Amino acid sequence: MKAFILSIGDELVLGQTVDTNSAWISQQLASVGCDIVAHKTVGDDQQLIEAAIREGSTLADAVVISGGVGPTEDDLTRQAIGTLLGEPLELNAEWLAEMQRFFTRLARPMPKSNEIQAMIPRGATMLFNTCGTASGVRATVGGAQVFAMPGVPKEMKAMFARDVFPWLKERSGGAVILQKTLHTFGAGESTIGERLGSLMMRQRNPRVGTTVSQGIVSVRVNARYESLDRATAEMNTTVGLCRAALEDRIFGEDGETLPQVVAQLLVSGGVATSVATAESCTGGMLAKVLTDIPGSSRYFKQGWITYSNEAKASQLGVRKETLEQNGAVSEPVVKEMALGARERAAADFALSISGIAGPDGGTEAKPVGTVCIGFAHSNGVTAGTFIFPGDREMVRDRAAKMALMMLRYHLLDKPMPV
Amino acid sequence: MKAFILSIGDELVLGQTVDTNSAWISQQLASVGCDIVAHKTVGDDQQLIEAAIREGSTLADAVVISGGVGPTEDDLTRQAIGTLLGEPLELNAEWLAEMQRFFTRLARPMPKSNEIQAMIPRGATMLFNTCGTASGVRATVGGAQVFAMPGVPKEMKAMFARDVFPWLKERSGGAVILQKTLHTFGAGESTIGERLGSLMMRQRNPRVGTTVSQGIVSVRVNARYESLDRATAEMNTTVGLCRAALEDRIFGEDGETLPQVVAQLLVSGGVATSVATAESCTGGMLAKVLTDIPGSSRYFKQGWITYSNEAKASQLGVRKETLEQNGAVSEPVVKEMALGARERAAADFALSISGIAGPDGGTEAKPVGTVCIGFAHSNGVTAGTFIFPGDREMVRDRAAKMALMMLRYHLLDKPMPV
Repeated sequence: MKAFILSIGDELVLGQTVDTNSAWISQQLASVGCDIVAHKTVGDDQQLIEAAIREGSTLADAVVISGGVGPTEDDLTRQAIGTLLGEPLELNAEWLAEMQRFFTRLARPMPKSNEIQAMIPRGATMLFNTCGTASGVRATVGGAQVFAMPGVPKEMKAMFARDVFPWLKERSGGAVILQKTLHTFGAGESTIGERLGSLMMRQRNPRVGTTVSQGIVSVRVNARYESLDRATAEMNTTVGLCRAALEDRIFGEDGETLPQVVAQLLVSGGVATSVATAESCTGGMLAKVLTDIPGSSRYFKQGWITYSNEAKASQLGVRKETLEQNGAVSEPVVKEMALGARERAAADFALSISGIAGPDGGTEAKPVGTVCIGFAHSNGVTAGTFIFPGDREMVRDRAAKMALMMLRYHLLDKPMPV
Repeated sequence: MKAFILSIGDELVLGQTVDTNSAWISQQLASVGCDIVAHKTVGDDQQLIEAAIREGSTLADAVVISGGVGPTEDDLTRQAIGTLLGEPLELNAEWLAEMQRFFTRLARPMPKSNEIQAMIPRGATMLFNTCGTASGVRATVGGAQVFAMPGVPKEMKAMFARDVFPWLKERSGGAVILQKTLHTFGAGESTIGERLGSLMMRQRNPRVGTTVSQGIVSVRVNARYESLDRATAEMNTTVGLCRAALEDRIFGEDGETLPQVVAQLLVSGGVATSVATAESCTGGMLAKVLTDIPGSSRYFKQGWITYSNEAKASQLGVRKETLEQNGAVSEPVVKEMALGARERAAADFALSISGIAGPDGGTEAKPVGTVCIGFAHSNGVTAGTFIFPGDREMVRDRAAKMALMMLRYHLLDKPMPV
């Protein structure tokens, strides 16, 4: 079963609203093995809507539309379907009565303009809206089944679940698509791609691809098979091969985030181990992501943001000589920051960050993006120097993530790969 | 000028990632009067990519693509453009050298697989990527100009601004759409809507609407006229009316953020005034947003993250009695936190936050969402108690924003409206 996703609205095509419906619908369809041919978005123009539905009906078995079924003059999806069918719109008595009940509940008269929301092309089927006044439409255009739903996400989702998904699921012929995503941080996309090697061949099933978001390189695995058992087995095999290729570069799966994974490691021993932070260029970002997690007071002890050299000295006990001899962005300084934070917070671990986030402050020896990260633990203190590409936001973000990775590898009792 | 927006990637078509690039690109193009014919999204399939580019080139004067120019085997946009042009891909020496410099700077060898990112179809133009390793492509397909950019939003936006927008702007010409957005924080959308009154009538030009994102209620004004002069004049009039209705509830315009506006106020007197932070439930988020701004060391002195009562006492000098008598989430405690932070950091101002971000820790008297904010300045210390709706992330975010608003109103020498 092939599907074409169409969203309609001037606000979408002008970019004033981001289309989240298409992604949501795609996930639902993919889960029952639908092959998504394309998403398309057009404005509130009847001819463009007609052309898009016609395109979808030639490319796919199902055209799933959201938007353009409201009560105002710029809502033209019903009319477009009517024109494509060569049929007039007719007032659907069942939905009209439903709308009238809706307005009676609100103790308001029903505006005349709402009547259009009960108009359905002759020969088409009305779809119930359990959260609003816009009915939907199901019709056969060419060889394809066309579903028109409201653009309001809540209404669309309810209608989809009630009348669209069951119809498609029954006809999808049982093909199953499973999806799994593995997240890595620290190695570039090309390095990850090279390690995956032939796993990334395009014709492979399960298919393996990579995407990058905020420095996180994610490996996506999509398995498409006739049965759930087969899909599950093949998915497990391929995920196993990806894990073997990338080892503990993979920090999490699917919805897991790096701070979540580190938090789990910190509390997983039964007794929570605790962490403190001492930040310069990241200005609180590391503490912020560590405390994003509910219950973070179990493991987060205390944090310092010491921008100036004076604060590093007075608050964390970094020695004047260390600062003078090495500069604030140096391994000796972050080591003393981490040791000072660990001791003062009476924490098991302390992470420290000092760097040049930019855009100013870079030198030839220490260009913008240079970041030193320190890590104090029960056996002493270590530090590393990194150069992160990108702007201030990126450098700060990558520095905080790298600090979490240092802690993660320590908690795993493994060396960090180069 | 008509434009067709194409985004490419399995993760998009499968709904694993929401496409935000198309909306952003559309906004940019609409601002210079481009007519957006459609958005389309296809997966990592060379034939589908070719068909989509061909479609765009017949419908529009410009096809603006994001995605599919990475270093792995599922990146096929370059190859598709080459096929449409009937030209081979050639190694672009300029970009290869640029990539090699990029890797040298990171002190890493360039993986061989990155070379593909310097491959450009013969006769096409290479587009510079200022934030990453994937070059872009500009080519003429049919009668249309095709721009291929990376899918990573940051890289795409930089490339668009540098090489795509100027090209399109010069060749657009015709209707002008101006957009202006005014940002408020603290009042709800309905309150803002009521104050705007008849300015929000749909048939009005310039059109006025509101949107809410992360607690920021923004007023969008769109002016569409035949000439730039007329559009500018009408825009100024309408923005003036909006400003009169909302007064200093408006903290900024367009791309301005609340931390930026506060930072400008802190440094605008010629001599920078300085601020320190003391955070409990926000865990560094307030310091993080204050230091998001380049040059924040001019005004940001120092920050403490004191989650536990012990840390509040030992690091900031909050008295045991104050904690015992009032609890950690109380105005007396945030006042002492702010006073302690201001004194220890020798700062002009200090902001403090203590609250119940949830999901646990709420009581009947102090439900989840209760946040006390303290503010110490040269004339003493004030505090306020707020109840923010939503989950942990929302409560923390709103608390940090409200603290910035307290500082902003103080710097404006105005009372905060209720």
